[in-house]
Amino acid sequence: MNAAINQHLELNLLNEGFEILFNQKVLLRHTAQQPMIYVGYGEETIKMYRGNFDIKDYLIERIPLRFAKVDELESEFQIELAKFQESYPSIILSVKIEDSRLKVEFKQNENQINRVWIRIAADQEEKVYGCGEQLSYFNLRGRNFPLWTSEPGVGRNKKTYTTWQADVKDQAGGDYYNTNFPQPTFISTRKYFCHMETTAYADFDFRSPDFHELQVWEIPKYILFDTAESYVELVEKITSLFGRQPELPEWVYNGIILGIQGGTKVVEEKLDKALEYGIKVSGLWCQDWQGKRVTSFGRRLMWNWQWSENDYPELDKKILEWKKRGIRFLGYINPYVAVEGNLYKEAYEKGYLALTEQGDVYTVDFGEFYCGVVDFTNKEAADWYKQVIKENLIEFGLDGWMADFGEYLPTDVKLYNGADAKLMHNAWPTEWAKINYEAVSESNKLGEILYFMRAGFTGVQKYNTLLWGGDQSVNWSLDDGLASVIPAALSAGMIGCGLHHSDIGGYTSLHGNKRSKELLLRWVDFSTFTPVMRTHEGNRPDDCFQFDGDDETLKHFARMTTIFVTLKPYTKSLVKENAERGIPVQRPLFMHYEEDPNVYDIQYQYLYGKDLLVAPVHQENQTDWEVYLPEDEWVHVWSGKTYNGGTVTVEAPIGYPPVFYRKHSEWKDLFAGLASI
Amino acid sequence: MNAAINQHLELNLLNEGFEILFNQKVLLRHTAQQPMIYVGYGEETIKMYRGNFDIKDYLIERIPLRFAKVDELESEFQIELAKFQESYPSIILSVKIEDSRLKVEFKQNENQINRVWIRIAADQEEKVYGCGEQLSYFNLRGRNFPLWTSEPGVGRNKKTYTTWQADVKDQAGGDYYNTNFPQPTFISTRKYFCHMETTAYADFDFRSPDFHELQVWEIPKYILFDTAESYVELVEKITSLFGRQPELPEWVYNGIILGIQGGTKVVEEKLDKALEYGIKVSGLWCQDWQGKRVTSFGRRLMWNWQWSENDYPELDKKILEWKKRGIRFLGYINPYVAVEGNLYKEAYEKGYLALTEQGDVYTVDFGEFYCGVVDFTNKEAADWYKQVIKENLIEFGLDGWMADFGEYLPTDVKLYNGADAKLMHNAWPTEWAKINYEAVSESNKLGEILYFMRAGFTGVQKYNTLLWGGDQSVNWSLDDGLASVIPAALSAGMIGCGLHHSDIGGYTSLHGNKRSKELLLRWVDFSTFTPVMRTHEGNRPDDCFQFDGDDETLKHFARMTTIFVTLKPYTKSLVKENAERGIPVQRPLFMHYEEDPNVYDIQYQYLYGKDLLVAPVHQENQTDWEVYLPEDEWVHVWSGKTYNGGTVTVEAPIGYPPVFYRKHSEWKDLFAGLASI
Repeated sequence: MNAAINQHLELNLLNEGFEILFNQKVLLRHTAQQPMIYVGYGEETIKMYRGNFDIKDYLIERIPLRFAKVDELESEFQIELAKFQESYPSIILSVKIEDSRLKVEFKQNENQINRVWIRIAADQEEKVYGCGEQLSYFNLRGRNFPLWTSEPGVGRNKKTYTTWQADVKDQAGGDYYNTNFPQPTFISTRKYFCHMETTAYADFDFRSPDFHELQVWEIPKYILFDTAESYVELVEKITSLFGRQPELPEWVYNGIILGIQGGTKVVEEKLDKALEYGIKVSGLWCQDWQGKRVTSFGRRLMWNWQWSENDYPELDKKILEWKKRGIRFLGYINPYVAVEGNLYKEAYEKGYLALTEQGDVYTVDFGEFYCGVVDFTNKEAADWYKQVIKENLIEFGLDGWMADFGEYLPTDVKLYNGADAKLMHNAWPTEWAKINYEAVSESNKLGEILYFMRAGFTGVQKYNTLLWGGDQSVNWSLDDGLASVIPAALSAGMIGCGLHHSDIGGYTSLHGNKRSKELLLRWVDFSTFTPVMRTHEGNRPDDCFQFDGDDETLKHFARMTTIFVTLKPYTKSLVKENAERGIPVQRPLFMHYEEDPNVYDIQYQYLYGKDLLVAPVHQENQTDWEVYLPEDEWVHVWSGKTYNGGTVTVEAPIGYPPVFYRKHSEWKDLFAGLASI
Repeated sequence: MNAAINQHLELNLLNEGFEILFNQKVLLRHTAQQPMIYVGYGEETIKMYRGNFDIKDYLIERIPLRFAKVDELESEFQIELAKFQESYPSIILSVKIEDSRLKVEFKQNENQINRVWIRIAADQEEKVYGCGEQLSYFNLRGRNFPLWTSEPGVGRNKKTYTTWQADVKDQAGGDYYNTNFPQPTFISTRKYFCHMETTAYADFDFRSPDFHELQVWEIPKYILFDTAESYVELVEKITSLFGRQPELPEWVYNGIILGIQGGTKVVEEKLDKALEYGIKVSGLWCQDWQGKRVTSFGRRLMWNWQWSENDYPELDKKILEWKKRGIRFLGYINPYVAVEGNLYKEAYEKGYLALTEQGDVYTVDFGEFYCGVVDFTNKEAADWYKQVIKENLIEFGLDGWMADFGEYLPTDVKLYNGADAKLMHNAWPTEWAKINYEAVSESNKLGEILYFMRAGFTGVQKYNTLLWGGDQSVNWSLDDGLASVIPAALSAGMIGCGLHHSDIGGYTSLHGNKRSKELLLRWVDFSTFTPVMRTHEGNRPDDCFQFDGDDETLKHFARMTTIFVTLKPYTKSLVKENAERGIPVQRPLFMHYEEDPNVYDIQYQYLYGKDLLVAPVHQENQTDWEVYLPEDEWVHVWSGKTYNGGTVTVEAPIGYPPVFYRKHSEWKDLFAGLASI
């Protein structure tokens, strides 16, 4: 039989098999020779060292489910998949349309399965994107991507000295796929998206010419597909599934958020200097508002989430004073409490901390200090932490914070809800985001407060007001430097996190990396064309050139923040589009030029909205820069010269990043004015 | 049923399974829950870059053969193993006694199997050794060992700078398991050996507490086991299977073989100097007797196997003259012919070279030059190459050579016999050894000529007159320096290659490694207590301290070679024992002290025969050295002090390596005399 449930869901018979079409696209194909599902059993070993995971699988069984029996029920196909002819099915699939999406539900029918491989039909030419925030590769085809939230790695490329040293000293070098924000969701150039509902360890393998193989360490709940006519429509559909981010607070567009540490006096002095030079400042972000400690990694924070009156005398008054001057104050929090602090004591006494298998409080090594893990699976504990945010942060007067971490849930921790920590690990970032979101929304401060996060997973979209690109190294490397932020923004944007920014200048200066003035300035140039500008002093501020490093730099910041502020109406319109339709602010070129075959592998350029094309200079010592322009009329912002597409080389001194606007944009006057700033 | 074929081979029934005992040892255990065999299918990708292999497996199926049917036939158990109840068996085993060994023969009963995993029953406390020449670990338990002949790697430890640089620049860093000489054979402290008859890629995994899992990329022909009462008996049995090495030529004991390059004049001058200082010299080994070239790696040879009259004028006469003075001349050959040479031309014209899939001659990149692969599967080609050895080497007057390489057979080469190159790759070293062996034996020169090899595989034992430890780095690293030679000698000795030696001073000086005088001297000290002493100038002689580097060094060589020559009768007796019984010259301590539980993990000390215990100093800047002595009466050679066992620390200046003799040895007078040299 060839069969159809309706015009969206059809099944074609093949020789010894079948294929399933959704909106005329073949998404699943099964034959006895090339079955669409394999099941098996493995024994993993998972070792964590400071957020870096060494995950090994001893795979004991991997068995094709060759034998399929399809039943056409009223509104679904039911597919029984078995290992042997005549044997009981190991997996039963229910394939149906739900909310106009294709839903493939999995019903386990056999114990002793903890590995599943699902093959999605693919074309040789197809490209895929997404899988969370991917820092090394935007187009994922040709590689596999383990999906497990973790430290992203220092260096992230085994060929670099930084990576090698990070590996040798801290097991922290990472690789191309390590990310704070993985997600088992991808979009294909066949114009569909695919989402697997699971929080288990997964590994999406895009290396085969004929299929994508999605490995997951449990039987997943379901897989969803949806198709669209355009990429814009596709991301709209994705974000209608995961939720959309709210708009940014108005004040964010008024200037840069300066990351400063060192206490009230230092902050005040640096702010005054910035303002004196004409830098547009919208906020002061002081990580150490709650005190700090010194470790060999650099200066670290106290991790006890309340105002340190000792470090920041009179901060309570200063916050109000700065706010009157239009400058907001932002702090820092993460989901762990340091054993030395009173919050730890309180959580300990209340039984809010995750436990070891022996029933003791589990403490995690964060690098020369230890913390308890607030157990968010206990609603009381989550509510308590929410209250900490409300009282200690919001009521104290903070207008934002870095909501750091979320990736470190150990897999051998005992949780309140009894769930396997291996299944909660990937769920943690979303839980953490949700607590922040609810603290803010229950305080009626959504749209007023800006918190930003690096960790993520499925569902984080609606709870994360702003993603940041994690801890780049303060260098020019593709995998861990300035450049890596661009694919990060683009990939996160494809799955619904369309608001992205990064630490201006990067964060990690280890193993000889020091932030140069040139890197800082190029990073400012890039960040001017992102929705949020924010600096970071780095983990070792003394090894990093800072915004107030010299006169020229201060002036540079003044000019670029003026450009940023000038772009406010345009940026705001993009952020609104993201909030309303889920279209990311930073977009791959193919989103608006899908007919151009050359744009699908471009990952170091982006469209900033529909009307600006940005090609950040991400290499050292450049005087000009090669840019690919899809066919359109493009005006180079600084020279006013018009191009009709193709590969062009433009002058690109510091302060004049390669940025082009569409000649016929409704914002053309705004863009044309930038050259005179 | 419990059943027995005879008193050696029994079968015990278990709940849903059985176990097979050979000489009362349980070697195989099968239950439906823990089957003894898994089968599957994989698609490998094998990339070679200059002898370094990047091997990845995409494993598609791995299926337990849970369902066993055992038949007791007249002289064997026949075991049918199936995936499903009532299904046809995938594998049929014939389990029987043959030549007093247990033989488990595999009969394939299903296509589409190219991966097999066999579990050998194990005890938690058990240790295993062997698997060829293993340079990083002697006791293999706790790790897996891919068995594929290749370059051993430069550095061999991902944590070292040398390894990292070698990986980044040449994909050549290697890892703990890389070796020129793997072999699917191991011995267990349960006093059995196990050998798998296959030349396919294999990976022996000794990580599980309950079993050893032997992976192989074909259905192997058979597995052999034999048991013994002692380790000495066990190696006798192993060598009765693989064959034993002949005795070394008499002249080898008369001094050191000096590795010198640079032409007749340079060699003569260096020899004169050595003799003048009293160095005992048995041979001159001149790699570049057939010319050389310069590459970025260092000086390389011409790879056209005939006397270079240009580089070595009058060598034909000199060889005779030196021989009269008791000094033999040794050269160099390997199984490849450089495209520039006349041998390549001849082989090309005769059709003796391996081809590409397209039918062109396959040329292999050896590092800035290219070579053809003489196709040993063509008997005519093998005979031709044998003739090259006979005429160009033996008849010319060479009394030995390094028979280098053998590990580089590309897996995509088309061979004369039509065999899959992936199956011939591991077979190549033995083919190469056999050609050398036959050239020598057919010239009636066995016991007269000394050739030495680094590559090996099953069966190489009887064809390899002397193993050398490959290309150590000129440093102190455990995995790739002086120390690594000791486990290499011990592991090779366990599977029948009991004659081992190494390049004195090491070979590879890359990525900043330079050979220090101290390293050279410590290496001489160690090599004095091995059956052959031979120096190597290194790949970059100018970066290596040489035997004639200064007065002190020359004197040092004079004294140590005198000790070596003094030991001649003892060493000769050990070599004879190796030839007659297969008992290696360098032995692990447990071979003679098996009751002592402390000796099984000692891999940087050895017994030199039964009566000497050697603990080479393999670290820099040492003045004394800690040694473990099993319970016995041991006399420290240099001080004459007697110890009764345990951990002792002795003074160990250069020239006085920690060596002890058994007080009651029949050789005690010889040993006692060493102190006065």
